[in-house]
Amino acid sequence: MAEFMTETERRSPAVPHPGTAGEQRAGTGDAGAGPLDGHTEGQREGHPGTPEAAVLLERTRAAVDPELRAALTSLPGPLRRIALYHFGWQNADGTPAAGNAGKAIRPALVLAAAAALGGPAARTAAVRAAVAVELVHNFTLLHDDVMDRDTSRRHRPTAWTVFGVADAILAGDALQALALRLLAEDPHPASGPAAARLAGCVVELCAGQHTDTDMEHRAPDEVTLDEVLAMAEAKTGALLGCACALGALYAGAGDEEVAALDGFGRQAGLAFQLIDDVIGIWGDPRHTGKPAGADLAARKKSLPVVAALASGTEAAAELAELYGKPYVPGDDEGIARTARAVERAGGRDWAQAEAADRMARAVQELSRAVPAPEAADGLLALAEFVTRRSS
Amino acid sequence: MAEFMTETERRSPAVPHPGTAGEQRAGTGDAGAGPLDGHTEGQREGHPGTPEAAVLLERTRAAVDPELRAALTSLPGPLRRIALYHFGWQNADGTPAAGNAGKAIRPALVLAAAAALGGPAARTAAVRAAVAVELVHNFTLLHDDVMDRDTSRRHRPTAWTVFGVADAILAGDALQALALRLLAEDPHPASGPAAARLAGCVVELCAGQHTDTDMEHRAPDEVTLDEVLAMAEAKTGALLGCACALGALYAGAGDEEVAALDGFGRQAGLAFQLIDDVIGIWGDPRHTGKPAGADLAARKKSLPVVAALASGTEAAAELAELYGKPYVPGDDEGIARTARAVERAGGRDWAQAEAADRMARAVQELSRAVPAPEAADGLLALAEFVTRRSS
Repeated sequence: MAEFMTETERRSPAVPHPGTAGEQRAGTGDAGAGPLDGHTEGQREGHPGTPEAAVLLERTRAAVDPELRAALTSLPGPLRRIALYHFGWQNADGTPAAGNAGKAIRPALVLAAAAALGGPAARTAAVRAAVAVELVHNFTLLHDDVMDRDTSRRHRPTAWTVFGVADAILAGDALQALALRLLAEDPHPASGPAAARLAGCVVELCAGQHTDTDMEHRAPDEVTLDEVLAMAEAKTGALLGCACALGALYAGAGDEEVAALDGFGRQAGLAFQLIDDVIGIWGDPRHTGKPAGADLAARKKSLPVVAALASGTEAAAELAELYGKPYVPGDDEGIARTARAVERAGGRDWAQAEAADRMARAVQELSRAVPAPEAADGLLALAEFVTRRSS
Repeated sequence: MAEFMTETERRSPAVPHPGTAGEQRAGTGDAGAGPLDGHTEGQREGHPGTPEAAVLLERTRAAVDPELRAALTSLPGPLRRIALYHFGWQNADGTPAAGNAGKAIRPALVLAAAAALGGPAARTAAVRAAVAVELVHNFTLLHDDVMDRDTSRRHRPTAWTVFGVADAILAGDALQALALRLLAEDPHPASGPAAARLAGCVVELCAGQHTDTDMEHRAPDEVTLDEVLAMAEAKTGALLGCACALGALYAGAGDEEVAALDGFGRQAGLAFQLIDDVIGIWGDPRHTGKPAGADLAARKKSLPVVAALASGTEAAAELAELYGKPYVPGDDEGIARTARAVERAGGRDWAQAEAADRMARAVQELSRAVPAPEAADGLLALAEFVTRRSS
């Protein structure tokens, strides 16, 4: 389950990631994985290449937050309290909090896609869909935290640790219902297809989370690269794709354009996941918020690791042996050896190249639906922000 | 949380319940609580007064099951398997099972309401809404079983005990999404308002379940009768009301008729819960499937108990003292004393009277929207079936 979560665990302002041969070959330059969620502060300074993304995210929060808060406030008392806590707008005791509802990448994609295909009017019309997508995202976070027993999110104790498992499940259930009610009540002609698409995406997210939890109980050599890629697409790509598709629907786009925007979001989401997994092994703990090698210590079957294991190399055999034994706390040398084995087996190079390839596919999908470069700018800026490409 | 569950724990064919002074005064005659769910076998024999209900339920299963199975079969593999197991159509190993998907009371209410207000065409049009309501009901069962750690449902191990907590949560999430997707994809003009109403009902169900779990952790004297009634309405009445309202919507009914049918279902649901709680204390274990007094042994804050505690009588004080101490397994005399205290404090009489009053209100609501007796017949038969009134 970690993949879907890691986005929030690495929320420090990103800095250019030291390049490697693999990265250069892959053409991702100084790419560094970044959060899909988290604080926005320091964004502009940290990302000279993506000032537009920071502006888009700020504008998104301004457009979405009032409707989002109104939706949460419509919940019955106890559920409202859990939801407002989860979104960072209340403390556990119900007093107002500074607020840290995440970066709003998904709502920003909805609005940017609507604007790209339908201009400012479509962007305004799509605000409710943006809120619905953000509600669905947070419903999955609430439930995933319960399943994964994660105790921290956005620098605060997770909802289930504060309110109990039952209430965290119920609050998640209510957020899903709220999301689909918002769309059902929206008189816009796109609301029906959007609701159907969002509900279908929820099923895909659930299947992805199932595969993720299931794979944790299997031996590394029982997990194929195709499976991990499919899982990452279902868990991370699907909702990014759905966000873009909903924006397209609200712009009145046709089936082909909607499918292309879904593809754009999916491929960008996979690129994000690949780079996030690289950071999970070689990332600088000062910037990722967790020790370098944390994913290796947890014996996580991340994309570079599974690619390395599948390489048939000598290093793969060594990696399999290292992964077969539990991590001994404090064994930094063991982690370093494991990281080297992944790298020697080609896991790092593959992940960087695959990420670059996915981004190329994303751009290609986008150009099918939005040929004018200036119209595509916002979506591209968000995709680059998500994958932290400053090149 | 027991209330929402008990409907499935008492699924034996009901028999006339020995009348009491209270019952006679309340006019509920030989009412006995019955399941909202469970086996249908023996229904006709057990309920000479409600043959129509048995016919309606059988017809409902025939109309709803193909669409329901198709919806479940559309789920990705692992989620499909959990869902088909939960619905009783597969064994844990994935082989076909005899099937025991419950009595389909809620879908029957959808179809009966549609037929009452719009005739056979509306009934046919409403099948998808009936499936959606059944999916929502089962989503809540999957999650409630996790929260309540209930290990048995419909005579089989609960899904979480077979597939684990994470997968049971995910399957529930997917069923909610499936329900709302079915409505979103339905071209019928009522599908939008129906989806909005069903999603709003989910929020109410979640709030009811929250109150129920919350009340379990409070002392009996910290729970008011109004609270328990509100909880029962949210947990049990809301979805029965929503089922009737959706049927009305699919019949093209106006706001007032929809509201009246919602009220009919809610009041009938409350009547059911009151009688179910009476059975939970005085019911015959041969017929309820659990020992008489089981609710008392669990110190459950059921409606008759809370009413008794609030009576200000000497018996109330005795009951409070008995409830203040944990049940000692095997202490049948203690349970018998507790039951007598509830009865002497007026808890049984009140519950019977209140149930009769709720049924009267239900009938009144129904007559507002469906004045012709023959059109209302199906809904009345189902309400009587639910509350096991054979008079």
